[in-house]
Amino acid sequence: MPGAAFPNAEIIAVGSEMLTPQKVDTNSLFLTEQLNALGVEVVRKCVVGDDRERLAATIRVALESARILILTGGLGPTEDDVTRDATAAAVGLTQVFHQEIADAIEERFRLRGRKMAEINKRQANIIDGADVLPNDRGTAPGQWLVHDGVQIMLLPGPPSELKPMFTAECLPRLEALLPPQVIRTRFYRVSGMPESELDALIAPVYTKYLNPVTTILAAAGDIQVHLRARCTTCEEADAILCQVGPAIESLLGDRIYSYNGDPLEVVIGRQLRALGGTLSVAESATGGMLGARITSVAGSSEYFDGGFITYATAAKTKLIGVDPALIQAHGVVSEEVAKAMATGARERTGSTYALSVTGVAGPDGGTEAAPAGTMVIGFASPDAAEARRIRLPGDRTLVRQFAVQAALDLLRRRLTAAAKSSTIGATS
Amino acid sequence: MPGAAFPNAEIIAVGSEMLTPQKVDTNSLFLTEQLNALGVEVVRKCVVGDDRERLAATIRVALESARILILTGGLGPTEDDVTRDATAAAVGLTQVFHQEIADAIEERFRLRGRKMAEINKRQANIIDGADVLPNDRGTAPGQWLVHDGVQIMLLPGPPSELKPMFTAECLPRLEALLPPQVIRTRFYRVSGMPESELDALIAPVYTKYLNPVTTILAAAGDIQVHLRARCTTCEEADAILCQVGPAIESLLGDRIYSYNGDPLEVVIGRQLRALGGTLSVAESATGGMLGARITSVAGSSEYFDGGFITYATAAKTKLIGVDPALIQAHGVVSEEVAKAMATGARERTGSTYALSVTGVAGPDGGTEAAPAGTMVIGFASPDAAEARRIRLPGDRTLVRQFAVQAALDLLRRRLTAAAKSSTIGATS
Repeated sequence: MPGAAFPNAEIIAVGSEMLTPQKVDTNSLFLTEQLNALGVEVVRKCVVGDDRERLAATIRVALESARILILTGGLGPTEDDVTRDATAAAVGLTQVFHQEIADAIEERFRLRGRKMAEINKRQANIIDGADVLPNDRGTAPGQWLVHDGVQIMLLPGPPSELKPMFTAECLPRLEALLPPQVIRTRFYRVSGMPESELDALIAPVYTKYLNPVTTILAAAGDIQVHLRARCTTCEEADAILCQVGPAIESLLGDRIYSYNGDPLEVVIGRQLRALGGTLSVAESATGGMLGARITSVAGSSEYFDGGFITYATAAKTKLIGVDPALIQAHGVVSEEVAKAMATGARERTGSTYALSVTGVAGPDGGTEAAPAGTMVIGFASPDAAEARRIRLPGDRTLVRQFAVQAALDLLRRRLTAAAKSSTIGATS
Repeated sequence: MPGAAFPNAEIIAVGSEMLTPQKVDTNSLFLTEQLNALGVEVVRKCVVGDDRERLAATIRVALESARILILTGGLGPTEDDVTRDATAAAVGLTQVFHQEIADAIEERFRLRGRKMAEINKRQANIIDGADVLPNDRGTAPGQWLVHDGVQIMLLPGPPSELKPMFTAECLPRLEALLPPQVIRTRFYRVSGMPESELDALIAPVYTKYLNPVTTILAAAGDIQVHLRARCTTCEEADAILCQVGPAIESLLGDRIYSYNGDPLEVVIGRQLRALGGTLSVAESATGGMLGARITSVAGSSEYFDGGFITYATAAKTKLIGVDPALIQAHGVVSEEVAKAMATGARERTGSTYALSVTGVAGPDGGTEAAPAGTMVIGFASPDAAEARRIRLPGDRTLVRQFAVQAALDLLRRRLTAAAKSSTIGATS
């Protein structure tokens, strides 16, 4: 496995303020991006409060498995700033006072018309043998030391100091240490099946390979599959992707709706433009969420003719002419009503296609025929109207999100078919 | 200090996807908030990839110092889901297969008309001696075990599953374990001013007190102000809240729309019910988001008569009869068109009130008269129609969210006035 040559990294962010409900450690996101670009994977990251012993213990554990360890924050002048002391304790080294660093900090204060406080001298303590990483934006210098083959970096916490220091000082050193490599990816977005089913389908393929790495992410009826190949040459990376990619693609088939990360609303927008068709919607249970997804795409007015929010039963008749007798006979959550809604929206807007959603989002309002979570998606085209009944898991919000995804996916499949038959028409 | 008796907690989030540059572990923020409310401080948190050994090592270190350890994620059915195995290994226990859990998962699939994949059975493995925490929202049950005096929780990763499970199962158990303390809160939701302005207004009051703690949270035109008093008796807590609360309330005035956490869509629903009035909407720039917010409330069909998504210009004329000459004369993003949209929706649905939104969500489509971020909110009642132009910051999504919030807030203020005048009418 070519990936084995690349060392892994761990990141430890130091600071009690990042253990509150409001604060997130964003430095690790920047560092992860930079490390990934070098082919280095981050395998663990921690946030530790301003506690010397706990931080030293966390560093010791990281040193057992990481080849690169980055600590951020805790380099300030106060008692709370424990990174220097904890690191020195963890690696069993003393600190050396550097007069020239103290002078530089003092000069920095002087230039701003201030006097350096005595405690700032602490920032001139450097772990024995470590390289000093200069800090143009603040008083705390960074440190780089090598211990038992682990590259350890101590970087300041403020992003405005950390980012330039990492880019100017750490990046060139890391590049010189690491073997050259390339990363190639494939990316699929899939709808129409639960995560576990998808995994059962494609695991027999992807588990055979450590490279590329396959990741599956799922949210509200939308699944993303990532393949990431890491090799020393482009040819090698492309070659292994060409083994795994097509195998997964043929298993997933037309459930893949996007190869470039575009969401469904962008995909159907592109399809409608290509076909020169327009769309309208009639929404009951989703109350406007389908329209909101479609119009989240800038320029969607070119193919979206508008819609009706017919949440109350009376509105279905009043706004889009659904026959009350039909509702009486089949119930509001029925294939018949879904078709009548789509047809009504299509006629009133003059659109080529129309989607509709009627259902019981829950938690209340369910019946024996249509328990909470039941959704019926309607579709109308110049040729015909159809409807599909589905049963969705989750709470009210999730059920509504799933229904929107299912409606857009039904449209995608019908537009794909329409594009095929129009191509056949054109060539025959 | 009463806090000294309170045990500390650690949180470990499991999942390689949270070690990418894009993803942040947000579950730990929710858990930290919940634990803090119980008086428990989080002293370390980690994110570990899908690696059994590394996770087991991380758990072992946490067990050395934490009294409460929460693991999130990695409870899914696939090979990648390593939390069960790693925890069992770290505490030196085996896992026991629970047939009744497997049956419940199978039933869940059956209800959705699907067959359970064989791998889902893995989710029925429970660490020997652990309590099962039921999961209504997904297939993965949680687990709670006590090892060497440490309370260990295994919770599912999706926030929609984790949050209800923590609230329903973990919170009562933790409360029973922890020494008693009284927390009293006041909570305000505020609209109509930016966070910085609100902070400048109320900071002179709240900065005088360390207890209660005041927290301000802001999102898309919606600000939440929390006051949290932590004391040993109710009387003490109530007394300090009675000092700070009324002072903040009088500064914020009618910008406070909720004292109990209810969002705006619930507040206006209650107002409409009380007045016996109904509502309809006509949405251009928000494309259905306003209707989606209103119908996110179960039972909203009682007061919501429906709506129109008139995103394309032609739809404004076709669906709700906006005069093309009006659009020609004033432009689509104008007070005149917003009023005509609201009036049109009101007439076509027969609702008492109507809201409309027209605007430029951006990034393109702005003009000199209406640059990107310009939104015009229209309101129609039995008495008159009016419109308000606002200029909103942020990207397309944020601008649309702000506009929905502004529309609901305009409605709230008009309904408050209507309720007042009807009360005056009734008593005079």
